[in-house]
Amino acid sequence: MSRKLLIDIHTHLYLPRYAQLLRARSQIPRITTLNGEERLVILAGEAATGRPVGPSYWDRDAKLRFMDTHGIAISIVSPANPWLDFLPPAPALQTCEALNSDLEEYCATSPEVELGGRRRKRLYGMGYLPVVPGQEVGGVCAAVEALGKLPHIKGVILGTQGLGKGLDDPALLPMWESIAKAGLVVFLHPHYGMPPEVWGAQENGHVLPLALGFPFETTTAVARLILTGILDKLPALKLLLAHSGGALPVLSSRLASCIAHDPVAASRLAHDARYYLGRMWYDAVAYGPEELAFVVPTRGTDRLLCGTDHPFFPPLKGEEMWMSVTENLDAVENAPGWSEGEKEGVRGGNAVELFGL
Amino acid sequence: MSRKLLIDIHTHLYLPRYAQLLRARSQIPRITTLNGEERLVILAGEAATGRPVGPSYWDRDAKLRFMDTHGIAISIVSPANPWLDFLPPAPALQTCEALNSDLEEYCATSPEVELGGRRRKRLYGMGYLPVVPGQEVGGVCAAVEALGKLPHIKGVILGTQGLGKGLDDPALLPMWESIAKAGLVVFLHPHYGMPPEVWGAQENGHVLPLALGFPFETTTAVARLILTGILDKLPALKLLLAHSGGALPVLSSRLASCIAHDPVAASRLAHDARYYLGRMWYDAVAYGPEELAFVVPTRGTDRLLCGTDHPFFPPLKGEEMWMSVTENLDAVENAPGWSEGEKEGVRGGNAVELFGL
Repeated sequence: MSRKLLIDIHTHLYLPRYAQLLRARSQIPRITTLNGEERLVILAGEAATGRPVGPSYWDRDAKLRFMDTHGIAISIVSPANPWLDFLPPAPALQTCEALNSDLEEYCATSPEVELGGRRRKRLYGMGYLPVVPGQEVGGVCAAVEALGKLPHIKGVILGTQGLGKGLDDPALLPMWESIAKAGLVVFLHPHYGMPPEVWGAQENGHVLPLALGFPFETTTAVARLILTGILDKLPALKLLLAHSGGALPVLSSRLASCIAHDPVAASRLAHDARYYLGRMWYDAVAYGPEELAFVVPTRGTDRLLCGTDHPFFPPLKGEEMWMSVTENLDAVENAPGWSEGEKEGVRGGNAVELFGL
Repeated sequence: MSRKLLIDIHTHLYLPRYAQLLRARSQIPRITTLNGEERLVILAGEAATGRPVGPSYWDRDAKLRFMDTHGIAISIVSPANPWLDFLPPAPALQTCEALNSDLEEYCATSPEVELGGRRRKRLYGMGYLPVVPGQEVGGVCAAVEALGKLPHIKGVILGTQGLGKGLDDPALLPMWESIAKAGLVVFLHPHYGMPPEVWGAQENGHVLPLALGFPFETTTAVARLILTGILDKLPALKLLLAHSGGALPVLSSRLASCIAHDPVAASRLAHDARYYLGRMWYDAVAYGPEELAFVVPTRGTDRLLCGTDHPFFPPLKGEEMWMSVTENLDAVENAPGWSEGEKEGVRGGNAVELFGL
């Protein structure tokens, strides 16, 4: 393990109970078997073959080995998409409770590491919320309260569908209030991308939905959320954006200008749109030093936190070090103009601060 | 007029013949009348009220006054969206020819200005192409050849629909070849944004389609184009991207990584995806100095050119100077780390070079 503290705040898992749930399904999302090997199918376009899935998704020892290989001291693990999005309201509540309890145990029984003179676990978690179409928001709030009482759960992971109308649905206000009150971090993460017709008819594999669709989805969800004024209403709400906020940072001044040219939208916000970007946190999963440095041009580096996106993007040739990890760590190392102290903050100090480790 | 050369390469018009075409229509796009005033309706969401439209869209003196007010010596005008996208193939061919002839005259009879010791026109144009669903590509190639013979036409403006299947349609190869051969600049410009359901049900005016949808559309179209390998095939092809390339620059390393993880896509390209970004040109319409500086972090400023997006985004309170223009000019002035020479290149020198003025 590297001598310098490295904390991974963007690292996923399917708990064994969740993998079982997917194996029992006949529709997407599901785990199926092809030529004797398990395959994961979570996107409509991959129905024919799916993608390899295995212990790296659910085995805790595999996660710890990956951490050791890459010098990661602590991981804040979060369930991988599509979470509970496909369940009806009542099963979503029950499954949510069981999975969050599994996640607490996964973390609570993990090995320890020394951090600032104290013993800490190597694994902490961000839990599920039962946000599915048709769910009563009261059920979601109860799940938030329950999560807040689990000692190794530090946040929630949230997709963009909400109760079926997205995250800017006014019906979600009590959820945001209860999350802010519980002091949980919201890790906002994409799954749906953009409607598939925008990628056209040429065969480009998953390149466009992953490279563009994911960041577009996050960007859209956050912009819609900003436009509700929720960040004025709830100053304590902590939003952590996947993939460095997608395209939001580079479009923030265009967004601000479009709002300024629209009297109705402008009247709902207490600040220029760019102010709210400074109120959020971002993972350092931007794949290049210039892109990474751009996420924080005027906002400082203290809201940027390292992530690996494990177990996605495994190496094609079975190398021990994952390129998807090293290129993001290299980006931190080579970000133009950052001091050593700033780099150490991004690698670990900022995560200690945000998650109160 | 400012003493320093300022050239506007992103400035639109509806020629009088085109405005007449829109007035004669009963479906979107159309120009209608509301309370005695003409209104422009080009997006489905604005059918009820449309937006104000008037001389700034078609009157050449209004364009020249706008240029004088903002110190613009020369404008490379381009037809505003949605171009001929809504016409059947045969009318698209005929209308295209008539409008390009109008555009040549609009420019050829414009006042003159001194540039590097030579007299130049104050107006040059980028013409229409008859790219509509069902069109034969031969007709498009003939239009390109005809445009190449008009002395004041320096390029073409192109939306993203192509012949109905987008710009990565293999059937378009002859068009790209004829454009490259004619030495015309392709100004790639959005119109369709993203499917409207992604913006949700809340009332945000045009903020999201304009602030996010436009750049997402451009980003998607260019990424799809890169993935065809056309830029390896046609080194002479000159692509100029609207709105600073949308989200493409900030997602370029993510795109490169996703391609590197996809053997099929990777095998089609001779270079890393980021290489192709360095082969394109970008307008300086990013609305903020940091965003603008980011467009060219490793590519140098010589592929960035000033634009205003006139007559869109007029001032809300009737100010003489348009905020949508001054904030982009201020962004050039305040771009971190640029020399005076680089700023002058962005303001005008790079346009002289690209368009051969």
